[in-house]
Amino acid sequence: MPLPSELVDALRAIAGAEHVRVDADALQAYGADALKRGHPADAVVTPEGADQISAIVRLCASHGVPFVPRGGGTGYTGGSVPVRGGVVISLERMNRILEIDEDNLVAVVEPNVVTGDLQDAVEKVGLFYPPDPASLKTSVIGGNVAECAGGPRAFKYGTTKQYVLGLQAVLANGDVIETGGKVVKNVVGYDLTHLLVGSEGTLAIITRVILRLVPKPLTRSTLRATFRTVEEAARAVTNVIRARVVPAALELVDRDSLEAVTAYLKGRSLAPPDTGALLLLEVDGFAEAVAEEANRCEQACLAAGATEILRARDEAEREELWRVRRELSFSLKTITPIKLNHDVVVPKGRIPQLFDLVARLKRDFRLRIPCFGHAGDGNIHVNIMVTPGDEDEMRRAHEAERVLFEGVVALEGSISGEHGIGFAKAKYLPIELDPQTIAAMKRVKHAFDPDNLLNPGKIFPES
Amino acid sequence: MPLPSELVDALRAIAGAEHVRVDADALQAYGADALKRGHPADAVVTPEGADQISAIVRLCASHGVPFVPRGGGTGYTGGSVPVRGGVVISLERMNRILEIDEDNLVAVVEPNVVTGDLQDAVEKVGLFYPPDPASLKTSVIGGNVAECAGGPRAFKYGTTKQYVLGLQAVLANGDVIETGGKVVKNVVGYDLTHLLVGSEGTLAIITRVILRLVPKPLTRSTLRATFRTVEEAARAVTNVIRARVVPAALELVDRDSLEAVTAYLKGRSLAPPDTGALLLLEVDGFAEAVAEEANRCEQACLAAGATEILRARDEAEREELWRVRRELSFSLKTITPIKLNHDVVVPKGRIPQLFDLVARLKRDFRLRIPCFGHAGDGNIHVNIMVTPGDEDEMRRAHEAERVLFEGVVALEGSISGEHGIGFAKAKYLPIELDPQTIAAMKRVKHAFDPDNLLNPGKIFPES
Repeated sequence: MPLPSELVDALRAIAGAEHVRVDADALQAYGADALKRGHPADAVVTPEGADQISAIVRLCASHGVPFVPRGGGTGYTGGSVPVRGGVVISLERMNRILEIDEDNLVAVVEPNVVTGDLQDAVEKVGLFYPPDPASLKTSVIGGNVAECAGGPRAFKYGTTKQYVLGLQAVLANGDVIETGGKVVKNVVGYDLTHLLVGSEGTLAIITRVILRLVPKPLTRSTLRATFRTVEEAARAVTNVIRARVVPAALELVDRDSLEAVTAYLKGRSLAPPDTGALLLLEVDGFAEAVAEEANRCEQACLAAGATEILRARDEAEREELWRVRRELSFSLKTITPIKLNHDVVVPKGRIPQLFDLVARLKRDFRLRIPCFGHAGDGNIHVNIMVTPGDEDEMRRAHEAERVLFEGVVALEGSISGEHGIGFAKAKYLPIELDPQTIAAMKRVKHAFDPDNLLNPGKIFPES
Repeated sequence: MPLPSELVDALRAIAGAEHVRVDADALQAYGADALKRGHPADAVVTPEGADQISAIVRLCASHGVPFVPRGGGTGYTGGSVPVRGGVVISLERMNRILEIDEDNLVAVVEPNVVTGDLQDAVEKVGLFYPPDPASLKTSVIGGNVAECAGGPRAFKYGTTKQYVLGLQAVLANGDVIETGGKVVKNVVGYDLTHLLVGSEGTLAIITRVILRLVPKPLTRSTLRATFRTVEEAARAVTNVIRARVVPAALELVDRDSLEAVTAYLKGRSLAPPDTGALLLLEVDGFAEAVAEEANRCEQACLAAGATEILRARDEAEREELWRVRRELSFSLKTITPIKLNHDVVVPKGRIPQLFDLVARLKRDFRLRIPCFGHAGDGNIHVNIMVTPGDEDEMRRAHEAERVLFEGVVALEGSISGEHGIGFAKAKYLPIELDPQTIAAMKRVKHAFDPDNLLNPGKIFPES
C-alpha cells in the first residue's frame, strides 16, 4: 500500500531525500531477512541518530502507519520483516564504535556496528566481547541485542544480555530513553535494559548500546572427540561438567550432519568411519589452567567411550578442527536447499532424550533431520530438511515441528534459545508459555506501544 | 488502620488462623527493615505456596488494601516496609531448597532460602552460587532477586541477575506466572525474569526461583596491599585491570574506615602507620592460574606504590586479612550509631574523582564520611555518620547526600549499585533518570499493578 505522499515528503524532510527510498527493489530487499519469507515495506528510511528516529516515529504514529527497525537483516524468524507494511527504519548509517574504554572495560557503540568488527577492535587492545552468533560477520550489535544473540561461547561466557550495561532507545511515542549506564552494578528503577534485550524490536528502537568487555583469554586449547553414538557424546558432556570444567565451546555434530559435511567437502573423510557424533571442545584462559582443563576434557571423553581424540597443536590445526562446524550451514544444502532451522534448547543433561525425540520424528514423519549445536548449554539446532516443491514433505515437516516443540517443553526446555519468535514461531508461543504469562507480556507491549505500530505482528499469536 | 474483620477472617481461612497475626508486636516488627524507618503493617500473613498468595492478593485487591511481600527484612532502603499500611505477606515459611541439579548446574529454591544456606548446600557438591551480599547469613534468595543483590564477588562473577534463569511469581491481579526456565538460553517472549529481578517487590511476588550455578573454584589466593593514598590504591586497581586480571574480590577501605576498625579492635594495629587506603584482593580458579594472577596483582600494587603486601598462606591467614573488611559495619558504630549508608557506583576508573568528591563533602558540610567497598566494579559504600540528636548535622548530611548523588551521576555512575531505591531514595530518582525514562518505568508499573496496591510508595517520587 503506497504511503500518502505527504508522509514520504515528511520522511525526506527529516532524514534527507537521499535517505528515503520507495523504489520496488528497496521495498522488497528491506522486506525480508534470513527467514526468506518477507513482506514488502512501503518505505525505507535510513536515519542518522536518535533525534531523527524520534521524529520519524512520531510522524508514522500520527498517520497510524507501522514502523519496523532493521539491523543486519540476518534474523531467522522474520523479526525485521514489516509483515503489515509501513516504514522500515534501517539503522545502517548508525555504525560507529563510539568508545572503547579500556580502564572501565566498556564499549559504547551505535546499533549497526557489525559484531565481528567490534570483536576485532576490542581484541586489538587485549579485550574480548564474547557473544559469537554464527552470523557475526554480517549481523550487528543492535540486532544481537534485540534478539539476545547467543553462539558457541555462551555456555562459558553467557549470551548477549550478560554484556549489555545500558541502552539509548526510541520508544513508540517518540520518547528517547536512556537505561542503565557504564557501571556493572545499577539497581535504580526497573531494569528496562534487560527488558529491551531480546524484545525483538517490538518495544523500542535501540539507538546506542553500552557493552561490558572482559579481558581477552591468553591461550586456548581445542579438542575434537568422536563417538559411536550421540548418547556417548552426551555422556562426555556430562563428564566434562562433573569434572567442573566450563569449556568456551562444547559443540556437538550428529551423524547426518557429518555425512553432509563429508559430501560437501567432496568425500574427504573428516571423522573415523561409524562416527555417530562428534564433539568439538575448546577451553581458554591462562596457559596452565587451559592445559589442566584440556586434560580433564580428554579424560571425560575417554571415559565416555571416545573413538578418537585430536588436540590442535597450533592455530592451523585449530582451524581444521573447527572446519566441520563452520561448513555445516553450507553442507546441509547438499541434502536439499530448504531447511526449517530450529534452535531448541533443553537442560544439557537431557540432550539424549532430545535426540531420541528427533529419531522418532525422522521415523514417524519420514524426514531428514540433521542436528548440531551447542551441547554445553543444551541448545541444539534441529534442521528439518524439505525438498522444494514437495508439499507433502513440507506438511509433514510442519507437523513434526509442533511435536518437536511440545517434546522440548516437556523436557523443561525452550522452543527458542537464539533465534527468537518473530512471526515465524508466533503460533507456537502457547506451547511454552501459559496464558497468564502471555497476558503479562501483552500488557508490557501495550504499555510501550498502545497503538501496536512498532513492529506489529511479532511474538504473539494472532488472536 | 485496623482491617475490616471479614478481611482478617478471610486471610485466616486462606492461610490458617495460626499464620495470620494482627498483634501490635507483629505489626511493628514486620513494618521495618534494616533502614530502621518503618511503618506498621495492618496484618501479617505467612502463607505457604503460590496458590495461597494468589488468593491473598485477590482478597486484598477486592478490598483495595495494599499488600507488601517480605523476605529476610534486611534491606537498607525500606523495600519491604508497608509505607501505606496493609497486609505484609511474609514468605518465611517458603524456605526450602527444592532441587540441586548437578548435571544441569541449576538450583530450584523457594524464595526464603537464606542465601548463605544455599551457598553451603551447593558447595558441598562442588558447585558455587557466587552472589555474596554482606547480609548473606540473614538475607534470602527472594529478597536478593527482588533487589538484585551484589557483593564483593560481583566484579568477577556478576550480581544476582546473572544467576536467575527463571521465576514463578504472583502478579497483582492474582495470576501466577512462570518465566524463563532451567535453560541458560531462552529467547521466547519478553524477558520478564529480568524485569522482575531488581523490581523491589513492586511488580510481582516471587514464589520460586531457578538459579544457575557454576563450578566451585578449586583454589584461591588472598592479598592485602596498603597504600599512602586512595589515589595510589585506585591506580593499583587500574593496573590490575590492565594486567587483564579479574579478581574475585577487589575491596577498598579508606583511612577513616581503617581508623574505626583499629578503634573497634582496641587499638590493635592492622595496617602500617600512615596508611591512607587498603586493598583486599582475592583471585580464584585453578591453582596455576591463581598463582599467576596473584603475582600479577602483587606487581600491579607494587607499581602503584604499595607500602606493604601480605599474601595469606593458609585459611587462618586469609580470615585474618578479611577481618578488617568484615568488621567494618560494626566498627563504624564506634564513630557514632547513625549512618546514612550509600552504595553509589562509578566507572571504576573514576574512583579517585569519587574520593575527591567525598573529601569536598567532608569539608564543605563538616561531616565524617568513612568509605569502603567494591573497587573492582566501582561500587563504594559512602557512610555519612550522624550523631543522634544532632539535627543540624542530620540536615547537613542530607544536603551532602544530594550533592553526592549529583556528583556520582556526573561521573557517569549510579546512585545505587546494590541497595535499590525503596522509599528512602525515591525522591532522588530524577537525579539519575530523565523524565521520559521514569515515565516508561511508571507505565510498566501500571501495566503490572494498575491499582497500585502491590508494595506502593516505592521507587518513584511522590507526584
